[in-house]
Amino acid sequence: MSAQLDLDSILEFTINLALEAGELIRSGQQKRFASESANEDEKVNSVDLVTEVDKAVEEFITKKIKETYPDHQFIGEETFKGQKITDEPTWIDGTTNFIHGFPMVATSIGLAVGGVPVVGVIYNPFLDQLYSAAKGRGAYLNRKTKLPITGKLKPLQSLGHALIAVEYGSARSAPQLPSKVKTFQTLAGSPELGGKMCHSLRSMGSAALNIAAVASGGLDLYWEVGCWAWDVCAGICILQEAGGVMFGPKTSSLSGEIDGDLLTGRKYLSVRGIAPTATETSLQVQQRFAKEFYDTTDDIEP
Amino acid sequence: MSAQLDLDSILEFTINLALEAGELIRSGQQKRFASESANEDEKVNSVDLVTEVDKAVEEFITKKIKETYPDHQFIGEETFKGQKITDEPTWIDGTTNFIHGFPMVATSIGLAVGGVPVVGVIYNPFLDQLYSAAKGRGAYLNRKTKLPITGKLKPLQSLGHALIAVEYGSARSAPQLPSKVKTFQTLAGSPELGGKMCHSLRSMGSAALNIAAVASGGLDLYWEVGCWAWDVCAGICILQEAGGVMFGPKTSSLSGEIDGDLLTGRKYLSVRGIAPTATETSLQVQQRFAKEFYDTTDDIEP
Repeated sequence: MSAQLDLDSILEFTINLALEAGELIRSGQQKRFASESANEDEKVNSVDLVTEVDKAVEEFITKKIKETYPDHQFIGEETFKGQKITDEPTWIDGTTNFIHGFPMVATSIGLAVGGVPVVGVIYNPFLDQLYSAAKGRGAYLNRKTKLPITGKLKPLQSLGHALIAVEYGSARSAPQLPSKVKTFQTLAGSPELGGKMCHSLRSMGSAALNIAAVASGGLDLYWEVGCWAWDVCAGICILQEAGGVMFGPKTSSLSGEIDGDLLTGRKYLSVRGIAPTATETSLQVQQRFAKEFYDTTDDIEP
Repeated sequence: MSAQLDLDSILEFTINLALEAGELIRSGQQKRFASESANEDEKVNSVDLVTEVDKAVEEFITKKIKETYPDHQFIGEETFKGQKITDEPTWIDGTTNFIHGFPMVATSIGLAVGGVPVVGVIYNPFLDQLYSAAKGRGAYLNRKTKLPITGKLKPLQSLGHALIAVEYGSARSAPQLPSKVKTFQTLAGSPELGGKMCHSLRSMGSAALNIAAVASGGLDLYWEVGCWAWDVCAGICILQEAGGVMFGPKTSSLSGEIDGDLLTGRKYLSVRGIAPTATETSLQVQQRFAKEFYDTTDDIEP
């Protein structure tokens, strides 16, 4: 089926869709701030308006996709009911909400075929940053800057040289949170603490934007336990087209191959291209970098 | 002395200075990426070029300030030799470096009189975001959007509702890092873990941008142990003019008053305006929010 898809026209459609959804998010946000400023009962009102914008954005995206590609499947964050990802072309969409006014927000729209993302677009409407890719066509920032923005793929000497994104997620009890925090301390800590003394850790709060930053070369790695297919689908395509590799939920799935199990596996390690080919990058990650991320959480449910 | 200063013209000068410094940072970065792409020996070269850009930016800023305000003092990150902050007008300047290509970079230029920041400008040249303020004149994003961007000051119900910025910093051994990480877990963790279950934690890697985000209303709090006067000087003015409050190094310095000891105290708690006046915000912080941040690190040297 993938061979029959016109990825160029699908990419063009998806970029326009993400830009239009971004306009909805921006105007919804302005409406929310204006309403809050005029209204004393801001708490209820604020949450309602955020939900309203999130739902309106997903409805808009769903409608456009169904009009244009009536035979395709659709999995969206707001309407997800445990659907499995089939071999059919499946659109996977999510938007980080903007409840706090923190500008690291993105709408993420990806198309997967046989569980493999073939088109991905991530758009931050507040910073007007558009990341886009289609299989075999490269990945771009704002349609003109090829990713990674750092030019050629550079080696990664050690975790001590790495800038790594991590997130706290929503599972905040034991064993998930203490296990994560222990890994954070191992990554950041000095050798006296048994640590790797990485350059530093970053948390932007959006999986899609973290992956986009890895694809851009601004982050070396992004480790996540607990997010969903709609957080990563578009990002996987962008990352791969930028020369990076996405790894799956288990040490045993460190091949660098993408499939439906990886896409829905809820544990992800994104790595920028650190070698001339994805195969070499995968090999280096398996041999040199995977241990710190997989040993501690392999057996923990997200 | 402060009364004699024309803050409007100083603000205008500082904004132009930050924009010009931003252009230097952008072009230095392009030069670096181009050089790395052409050059196999990228590691040495890259670090050298980053240092070169940082130094060139500070030299440019120092020169302009000394030409325009020859009687003022100057403290800069690159040339700091332990100078104390006097009562004289003192420019305090720093730039987060861009070694990783991660776009959360800023040049921060502040003017303090008697240890109190009276003008502050923070500019992110990669996202083209300019935050500026002068005492009594309000704080603005890109010169036209008044901060906070959320409009009126909104209450903060509890730490459970807060989006909080934290950073790992450069002191990565015991007791500093384990103490910080313990606080991170307390802020993020569920009540079963003895935690506050805050909305989430963010780490952008730039103190200046974290403070600017608090002033904007996108973050509720930002807690920092270990950064320097040049990281916070401009931000303090912007935060105060946006209705927020900056707290100092000790529980005993939770008055909300700014002085030279606070400016150089290397421990900071930034809080957005959560009440109609700064005095009320300070009182709420003392009574409801300070404990989690001060108890654990009061006795630890940054």
